[in-house]
Amino acid sequence: MGLVVQKYGGSSVADADGIKRVAKRIVEAKKSGHQVVVVVSAMGDTTDELIELAEEVSPIPSGREFDMLLTAGERISMALLAMAIKKLGHEALSFTGSQAGVITDSVHNKARIIDITPGRIKEAVDKGAVAIVAGFQGVSQSTKDITTLGRGGSDTTAVALAVALDAEVCEIYTDVDGVFTADPRVVKKARKIDEIPFEDMLELATSGSKVLLGRCVEYARRYNMPIHVRSSFSGHTGTWVRNRPEGEKGEGMEQAIISGVAHDTSEAKITVVGVPDKPGEAAMIFRSIADAEINIDMVVQNVSAAATGLTDISFTLPKTDGHRAMEKLTKAQPDIGFESLRYDDQIAKISLVGAGMRSNPGVTATFFEALSNAGVNIELISTSEIRISVVTREDEVKDAVRAVHTAFGLDSETDEAVVYGGTGR
Amino acid sequence: MGLVVQKYGGSSVADADGIKRVAKRIVEAKKSGHQVVVVVSAMGDTTDELIELAEEVSPIPSGREFDMLLTAGERISMALLAMAIKKLGHEALSFTGSQAGVITDSVHNKARIIDITPGRIKEAVDKGAVAIVAGFQGVSQSTKDITTLGRGGSDTTAVALAVALDAEVCEIYTDVDGVFTADPRVVKKARKIDEIPFEDMLELATSGSKVLLGRCVEYARRYNMPIHVRSSFSGHTGTWVRNRPEGEKGEGMEQAIISGVAHDTSEAKITVVGVPDKPGEAAMIFRSIADAEINIDMVVQNVSAAATGLTDISFTLPKTDGHRAMEKLTKAQPDIGFESLRYDDQIAKISLVGAGMRSNPGVTATFFEALSNAGVNIELISTSEIRISVVTREDEVKDAVRAVHTAFGLDSETDEAVVYGGTGR
Repeated sequence: MGLVVQKYGGSSVADADGIKRVAKRIVEAKKSGHQVVVVVSAMGDTTDELIELAEEVSPIPSGREFDMLLTAGERISMALLAMAIKKLGHEALSFTGSQAGVITDSVHNKARIIDITPGRIKEAVDKGAVAIVAGFQGVSQSTKDITTLGRGGSDTTAVALAVALDAEVCEIYTDVDGVFTADPRVVKKARKIDEIPFEDMLELATSGSKVLLGRCVEYARRYNMPIHVRSSFSGHTGTWVRNRPEGEKGEGMEQAIISGVAHDTSEAKITVVGVPDKPGEAAMIFRSIADAEINIDMVVQNVSAAATGLTDISFTLPKTDGHRAMEKLTKAQPDIGFESLRYDDQIAKISLVGAGMRSNPGVTATFFEALSNAGVNIELISTSEIRISVVTREDEVKDAVRAVHTAFGLDSETDEAVVYGGTGR
Repeated sequence: MGLVVQKYGGSSVADADGIKRVAKRIVEAKKSGHQVVVVVSAMGDTTDELIELAEEVSPIPSGREFDMLLTAGERISMALLAMAIKKLGHEALSFTGSQAGVITDSVHNKARIIDITPGRIKEAVDKGAVAIVAGFQGVSQSTKDITTLGRGGSDTTAVALAVALDAEVCEIYTDVDGVFTADPRVVKKARKIDEIPFEDMLELATSGSKVLLGRCVEYARRYNMPIHVRSSFSGHTGTWVRNRPEGEKGEGMEQAIISGVAHDTSEAKITVVGVPDKPGEAAMIFRSIADAEINIDMVVQNVSAAATGLTDISFTLPKTDGHRAMEKLTKAQPDIGFESLRYDDQIAKISLVGAGMRSNPGVTATFFEALSNAGVNIELISTSEIRISVVTREDEVKDAVRAVHTAFGLDSETDEAVVYGGTGR
């Protein structure tokens, strides 16, 4: 048997009991004959508490020092987890991101992995020990400073290590049983997905599904590393994220296969009003946003009014970057020459994800009908090969998700008992 | 002006306000024209909380993982302190023990410093930044694992860095105004000592004075690095620990100069009863203790009873090592051949420290008279060139210290207002 990488999130190691429970699970994997590498997040709310402390001390904490601070969280959880495993009679060694060979660029607070040199990890597992690695952190190649990987960084660490160590699977443990056809807190009849292709998972993740973040799915897809998302509180099989075997593609291939409905209320919408409709204008707008390292999501350009030669451009972006983007655009207004800006943070995005969508016009029709019947207005639309997303008012989002979920026959026969963690998270 | 190293203990950086207060003080030193290197401990009770967590997870935490865990504490305080200094408009960079070049041996939980290679620290201060270094931690030369330096480790880090960076002075900030002639909590009339030689400070420290630990004073003495012990809560001059200028030694040199009275209730006494009085017996006893890395303090061997050829050996050691020592000795009993062991943890040690003691027989006489008048029984006696220590019952220690303090004219004219930290620690 080969090597598995297991990743445990903060809610799985929230306290001493959680750490002991996770230790038992790791030892079981070890006993079954696997080499085990574990990636662990900070305990429970540790990271939030550290952020609060930082804000008390300084309202705009510096990148380098902020990373130094936050990495203390994983250091605590990984050392405790190693102790708990040793207590069960198995060897375990903890490693910081730097010690584990997680080499990153120098962009503090959201560094990108540029290389993994897991020599010490390999050595540890070859000696029969469980290697515990701090998630979310690395070391800058150029400055040798400690960096953090930003949101979803621990999942990405796990997948990247799994790839570098040629693992059989990367198991992501969380407080729910897997990936669901919709958020089970909103849709009671949501079903656990047993298996989902990378592409669909990627669309779900970037569309607001919180279980996995797009970044880690993208990494797994690129290197074809299967991910098994499962609960650390139950023994159930979770959701496998991997390529569908070639053979299965034959059957019913012309049918649309809907994976699920995602929603996202973390975005805001900016509308740039009265943009001269000539080449290069949109580019100038998005260049000024990109220069601030802000990622935008949906973009819609209205058909320009022939009389004025002016058009409106709307786009969505994370609420947290909203004010910074408005500032940037206001500064760039004289150069770009638009009329005004509108900012709206009361929006929600609903996305339907599944294969074969574009070639099935009925899918789009059913989607819009369901929203219309639920009385939900559509403000923006964007589509990809396997996704349709719409922007609506934030207060309509729950009705919209339920209506779409039902319309596509995703509801389970019975209200499925969703197993959440014992902590009620 | 040159470089100063400042060390702040956990009570000085117990919360966000403490960190901001310390940041201001650091910036003042910077503004006065000094290069400033700061060594900082973990915030308040952080270390104790981490130890509790570890004990919840595993009753006997492992050395390596325990060190990994504990070093998270300084990581938090140093990053926050750097942020607070930046907020005041000055550049600051934090460094782990490893990044600061604190190279140690591999004895986890009480590593010893074997080298300091402060290249990154020098670079930082040469660029005009304040360098913040995590106290109490280093990196093992052979295994590259994170180590901690054990009790008093942060003070030792500060002195060692001061030496390596050729600093003017090593300032140790604490929650009292300096070193006192006795513990001010016990002796109300204790006086702050303005200046004390390394040797006397060393004896006071190893005799129970908590302000500085012997290890850091020893390091400072060896490299002649002046230490200024002072309060981080007041602006007062504290206690200078340094060699007396040659000139001052002439005056009144034949007089005993009493520095202070220290007491210590952290030790226990073991008596090995019925030891064959022949060469090598004592060596075997102390070898078995030394093999367990336990430091013993006072040793007294009774005159052997001629009739039996047996003698008793008593020694004191830290209470925390008491049970381990008893275990070791019990195991070694067949080889050594003593009769029995007695363990007593209800003892206290009182020490009088000062120069010229041995050549002034009156000092010893006054010491014993004072104890006798206070009704205190003496169980063990040990003396050095500049110290007399006695062991008494633990419940008599306060009376004993007060009596000796008064007898040597150390009482201040008025009850001195001892400035403790605002937190009441």
